[in-house]
Amino acid sequence: MKLQLFDKLDASYKDMVQIRRHLHMHPEVSFNETETAKYIQKFYDQLGVVYEANVGGNGVVARIKGGKTGKTIALRADFDALPIQELNDVPYKSTVAGVMHACGHDGHTATLLQLAKALHEMRDQLAGEYVIIHQHAEEIAPGGAKPMVEAGCLDGVDAVFGTHLWSQTPFGTIEHRSGPMMASADRFEISIQGRGGHGAMPQDTIDTVTIGAQLVTNLQHIVSRRVDPIKSAVVTIGSFHAGDTFNVIAGEAKMSGTVRTFLPEVRDLVEAEIERIIKGTCLAADCAYTFEYIRGYPAVVNHEKESAFLFDIAKDIPGVNEVLECAPLMVGEDFSYYLEKVPGVFFFTGAMPEGTAYAHHHAKFDFREEAMLIAAKTLGAAVLDYQNI
Amino acid sequence: MKLQLFDKLDASYKDMVQIRRHLHMHPEVSFNETETAKYIQKFYDQLGVVYEANVGGNGVVARIKGGKTGKTIALRADFDALPIQELNDVPYKSTVAGVMHACGHDGHTATLLQLAKALHEMRDQLAGEYVIIHQHAEEIAPGGAKPMVEAGCLDGVDAVFGTHLWSQTPFGTIEHRSGPMMASADRFEISIQGRGGHGAMPQDTIDTVTIGAQLVTNLQHIVSRRVDPIKSAVVTIGSFHAGDTFNVIAGEAKMSGTVRTFLPEVRDLVEAEIERIIKGTCLAADCAYTFEYIRGYPAVVNHEKESAFLFDIAKDIPGVNEVLECAPLMVGEDFSYYLEKVPGVFFFTGAMPEGTAYAHHHAKFDFREEAMLIAAKTLGAAVLDYQNI
Amino acid sequence: MKLQLFDKLDASYKDMVQIRRHLHMHPEVSFNETETAKYIQKFYDQLGVVYEANVGGNGVVARIKGGKTGKTIALRADFDALPIQELNDVPYKSTVAGVMHACGHDGHTATLLQLAKALHEMRDQLAGEYVIIHQHAEEIAPGGAKPMVEAGCLDGVDAVFGTHLWSQTPFGTIEHRSGPMMASADRFEISIQGRGGHGAMPQDTIDTVTIGAQLVTNLQHIVSRRVDPIKSAVVTIGSFHAGDTFNVIAGEAKMSGTVRTFLPEVRDLVEAEIERIIKGTCLAADCAYTFEYIRGYPAVVNHEKESAFLFDIAKDIPGVNEVLECAPLMVGEDFSYYLEKVPGVFFFTGAMPEGTAYAHHHAKFDFREEAMLIAAKTLGAAVLDYQNI
Amino acid sequence: MKLQLFDKLDASYKDMVQIRRHLHMHPEVSFNETETAKYIQKFYDQLGVVYEANVGGNGVVARIKGGKTGKTIALRADFDALPIQELNDVPYKSTVAGVMHACGHDGHTATLLQLAKALHEMRDQLAGEYVIIHQHAEEIAPGGAKPMVEAGCLDGVDAVFGTHLWSQTPFGTIEHRSGPMMASADRFEISIQGRGGHGAMPQDTIDTVTIGAQLVTNLQHIVSRRVDPIKSAVVTIGSFHAGDTFNVIAGEAKMSGTVRTFLPEVRDLVEAEIERIIKGTCLAADCAYTFEYIRGYPAVVNHEKESAFLFDIAKDIPGVNEVLECAPLMVGEDFSYYLEKVPGVFFFTGAMPEGTAYAHHHAKFDFREEAMLIAAKTLGAAVLDYQNI
Repeated sequence: MKLQLFDKLDASYKDMVQIRRHLHMHPEVSFNETETAKYIQKFYDQLGVVYEANVGGNGVVARIKGGKTGKTIALRADFDALPIQELNDVPYKSTVAGVMHACGHDGHTATLLQLAKALHEMRDQLAGEYVIIHQHAEEIAPGGAKPMVEAGCLDGVDAVFGTHLWSQTPFGTIEHRSGPMMASADRFEISIQGRGGHGAMPQDTIDTVTIGAQLVTNLQHIVSRRVDPIKSAVVTIGSFHAGDTFNVIAGEAKMSGTVRTFLPEVRDLVEAEIERIIKGTCLAADCAYTFEYIRGYPAVVNHEKESAFLFDIAKDIPGVNEVLECAPLMVGEDFSYYLEKVPGVFFFTGAMPEGTAYAHHHAKFDFREEAMLIAAKTLGAAVLDYQNI
Repeated sequence: MKLQLFDKLDASYKDMVQIRRHLHMHPEVSFNETETAKYIQKFYDQLGVVYEANVGGNGVVARIKGGKTGKTIALRADFDALPIQELNDVPYKSTVAGVMHACGHDGHTATLLQLAKALHEMRDQLAGEYVIIHQHAEEIAPGGAKPMVEAGCLDGVDAVFGTHLWSQTPFGTIEHRSGPMMASADRFEISIQGRGGHGAMPQDTIDTVTIGAQLVTNLQHIVSRRVDPIKSAVVTIGSFHAGDTFNVIAGEAKMSGTVRTFLPEVRDLVEAEIERIIKGTCLAADCAYTFEYIRGYPAVVNHEKESAFLFDIAKDIPGVNEVLECAPLMVGEDFSYYLEKVPGVFFFTGAMPEGTAYAHHHAKFDFREEAMLIAAKTLGAAVLDYQNI
Repeated sequence: MKLQLFDKLDASYKDMVQIRRHLHMHPEVSFNETETAKYIQKFYDQLGVVYEANVGGNGVVARIKGGKTGKTIALRADFDALPIQELNDVPYKSTVAGVMHACGHDGHTATLLQLAKALHEMRDQLAGEYVIIHQHAEEIAPGGAKPMVEAGCLDGVDAVFGTHLWSQTPFGTIEHRSGPMMASADRFEISIQGRGGHGAMPQDTIDTVTIGAQLVTNLQHIVSRRVDPIKSAVVTIGSFHAGDTFNVIAGEAKMSGTVRTFLPEVRDLVEAEIERIIKGTCLAADCAYTFEYIRGYPAVVNHEKESAFLFDIAKDIPGVNEVLECAPLMVGEDFSYYLEKVPGVFFFTGAMPEGTAYAHHHAKFDFREEAMLIAAKTLGAAVLDYQNI
Repeated sequence: MKLQLFDKLDASYKDMVQIRRHLHMHPEVSFNETETAKYIQKFYDQLGVVYEANVGGNGVVARIKGGKTGKTIALRADFDALPIQELNDVPYKSTVAGVMHACGHDGHTATLLQLAKALHEMRDQLAGEYVIIHQHAEEIAPGGAKPMVEAGCLDGVDAVFGTHLWSQTPFGTIEHRSGPMMASADRFEISIQGRGGHGAMPQDTIDTVTIGAQLVTNLQHIVSRRVDPIKSAVVTIGSFHAGDTFNVIAGEAKMSGTVRTFLPEVRDLVEAEIERIIKGTCLAADCAYTFEYIRGYPAVVNHEKESAFLFDIAKDIPGVNEVLECAPLMVGEDFSYYLEKVPGVFFFTGAMPEGTAYAHHHAKFDFREEAMLIAAKTLGAAVLDYQNI
């Protein structure tokens, strides 16, 4: 049955490429993907697959019921683009000024549409049910995954699988890891409020440059002393701005930063410690402050069993040379919301192009299109084999 | 002879006020005081006093030779205005948009012109010679005093006296102190040059926010540990700017600040220590830096003998109620250059107006005009009496 | 053949316990284990097993040659005790005041001796050769492993296996991990040399309390900013001593600390960064320093293939309920030297006693003796099965 | 009358030297000066001068009433020695092992006794009353001045004068200053209480080495930012002790230090800021602390009028070449308690010996004895002339 699926996918490859290139030429930024959503809906209309539109926003959820009873398994692809002006000179170059599929979501969508088509065609022989999640808005927090899950797209689902075509991983390689794979990414804003004044009369002021400096230094102790060294955390202050001129003491200092963690308890700890350190530093300096901590996506944490399962099956996918355990990545992904709800795994499908492999979000980003076929087969094998475990 | 001088000054008071108000209505900012200089020259032309124009810039130096031999004594008044829009509603309000005599230099000039006139009229009975220095550009470093001294305005001079009409000192009070009276005021600019990068990957960057913060904190040790606590110093970092957004590590941090000291050896020490601390902090952090230290005016340091002399004579000036020793001020004044060259004293003539006494450089600054008469008499008494010591 | 080995080990269990208790009653501290070494030698003498004594110190290496060709595989047990006064009230309590087998090395030795005996008895049917390493001095750097390896105990060896009976892991559980499992543990000593003096005259001194404080704070940046957050590191300053009294500025500050890392490149980075930060901090403060960095054992890094192999075979050992991947531990072990030389794996054999499970190095430490049997079987199965891969 | 006094003092010089040498040979440490007190009492007994003994401890207060009405003026000399072994080889070397008049208080006492004798002899012609304060225990806080003042030694007193024979000031020079002349000297003790633990597991501890380091650095901001740069302050942490070994995190850090200030409001500010900074630093680090601030002597603050008076009269004392304004000194003196109660002045009488001028408290300290005569004449002139102002 898997071989039949693989044959169908091989046969669909030209369509897959055509869809991907169409989407690439017509990108839409996060939360504005209305035409892309319509394109997906039309695809399912033509197939006669039932779907729900406007799930949690622009999301589209199709459902394919097999002929026999079995598990309900979800697959997810995201379909939003980025506010980047494409610099590639390719026939399928973006036709929208300042907008580009610079992260491969066009490929994700083409892959999943053709996989859904193949599953639909094979539905009578299939056990269980397949929930095909086309998600909008992965690029910008709060993202599309959260509202789609809240709208019920995972109701009754037993497991979920997803992949990212990855330009930094060699073609033919599948990479993932059990447990934390991608970090939570939070943002914070701090304002230190002292009292400005003449640069020659510090005693009449509360100098927020010196207080802000103390704060930045004190915050280093979170990672160096308070977080378990085995459990990773990053606390970065990305910006620090205070004062207009050399001889006037600044009455306010503004800072902003990001926190990256893999574990919820570390995330909570870091947030609490930042606030405690601000509070103590400002008490010591007799000044006021404001502190805002905005949580981004949680960490992507692959489930152990599903991760082991994928290690097992992926090595037999045609075109896969290597299945590796990757190190955790500090970048974020809202696939985390699905994994918080049901078991599953998120993996990278190696899609490194020949020539320079530009990083995701680069204006010259591109990926090797054959990787879509490997991604489709791996996802397809996953849902078929998962019925048997 | 002093009484005769005082009588002449009393008689000139109306002219003094008229000159002050004329200048107040026609202010010119530092280094652009060409009309004011011409006004002064015309005054001396009409009197028949010899003078030199364009001394070190817009400076004017008149010389009045007494009938007898004696000491050569200089008097100085500055005549530049500030780029401030006057907010006072007075008949003599500035007629130049955005420019204002907000520091009292109009009064200084009126005072000195009338005093010069009186001395000129009494020249036959006078011993010695009187060098009348009308200085441009006191407000902005590098100032007018330095080039005027370099142009020779103090050549052959035995002593120099100057005053500042001071809106924060009660009318009828003369204030000064022996030794350091006003601080040197220097400026510095620091750039910390690291390597920017992704906020989640500090290990690939050199984070200038944290390095800049360490630097600010380390610089506190100059005042707290390295300067003699009896000898005052201020090191202020007025501005600190690094980074554009919360999740990108900043590759450069820029700081600017000011240093205030009273003693040349402390000034040298502080400059050297700042550089050493930057160097060490950047070595510890493996980053580059640039450092620029721009010296402003040196400290105004009154000479002991002349200061004691002024304490003695000032208490007998009509209108003077009190002669006080003031605490050193952290603001700067380029009268320092004269005092580096010859003995002398700089003092404050109390000119606090009725009602609110706005600080110097405030858009509503004004002073009590009768203080000009006290200033003229004190300066006049100083030059006459100084012949006898 | 494995079953035959297991039967033999089962039969030897009473002797194993007897040996363990004998050793427990006669502990010897690291580098002084001469009687223990003789005891081991006598054991092999009685068996007629060839061995080399005094290998790299008190080490003993026995060699058992199988009847067929095959791989040469080493097994290691350590046999030194600790300078701790035992507080257990057991029949086999230490008879030596202030010395105790408080880490289970008595059990390691008993286990390995009986396993060696069984292998010796089965030698004709066995393939390959078995190198039985009885190592002295694991507890104190520089340890016994290094000189034993240097003395050639691993010459011709294809793989090495070792275990630690672990009181904190449940009985019936085997734990290990591929890659870094136990940290390298280094020590450093810093002396900051300034200039002491009167507490009221900081300007005449170089204050090492403030410099030392800056240094401690600056060192936090290594972990918070310079080490990859995925790769763990700890930099601890355990002691800080400066100054004798409240009103005299301290001319010297002394610090000592420890560094824990898993990867050689992180270890090198941390050592280099500590020195750079000391150098920069002292340059900024115009003082001298001394810095000594003493490397302890390297990290225990299990080899990937052997680790996977052990996961596979351990789950079938009688008495083993669970084989888990453990988190890396920050404590050290000189088994690292063997793993630097040849492939292999070090694992924990769960030996948690009933009642309170005191930690290793506690005066009431003990372990469940049946765990020795599981350890012996797991090591035995490892050497037999490893012949076949 | 002054000349008569000077003549009497000249005549008494031999006795003065004899008394000084006697006291020098029989020194007694602070609070144990019973024999010295008896010696003083016996002197007044023989003269028939009324006195009170055991005033606030070992203090002795004699009173000499003049024949005419006038002001009541106090003079003070301290009489305690130091726990120092004398290293001078002089005929009058200390006969008490480990105890020495190493600060000149023997000279102070000899001076005042002979001055009192002269005043007593001239009492009929004198106006007012003279309170002769022989104070114990100047060297160790809480000192003798405070209890003597509390016991009423200044009741009814209009002014007080005192001097210190000063080995660092040239013979023939009198030095003092109006306002703050000697600093207050306080002591503080801090304990930071965290939680100790394994050096490899900072996350389970609260590391007091890092917290103590932050505290030391934060405390620098008091002097650098919070105290008016014109008003001096010193905050020194003299000792910092935490931790016993390199690989265990310290659960407690202990610090002690001293604060020097001249103005009560600065002293209050510094104490409050230290506590605020400890509180904030410990809040930021989630740890406990204890803080003890022990006030020593307040600053010696000379009164303006009496200071000016002394400048005037001192220049006419036979033997005085120069009367200088000195810089404030950071050392302490409990003459401050008298000046807090009544107007007066404390001055240095230059007593620099020929050869090396060892500092006060040095084992080779000595002073030029003729300075006693100058001190006596200056104090004598002060009390006589002060009747007339």
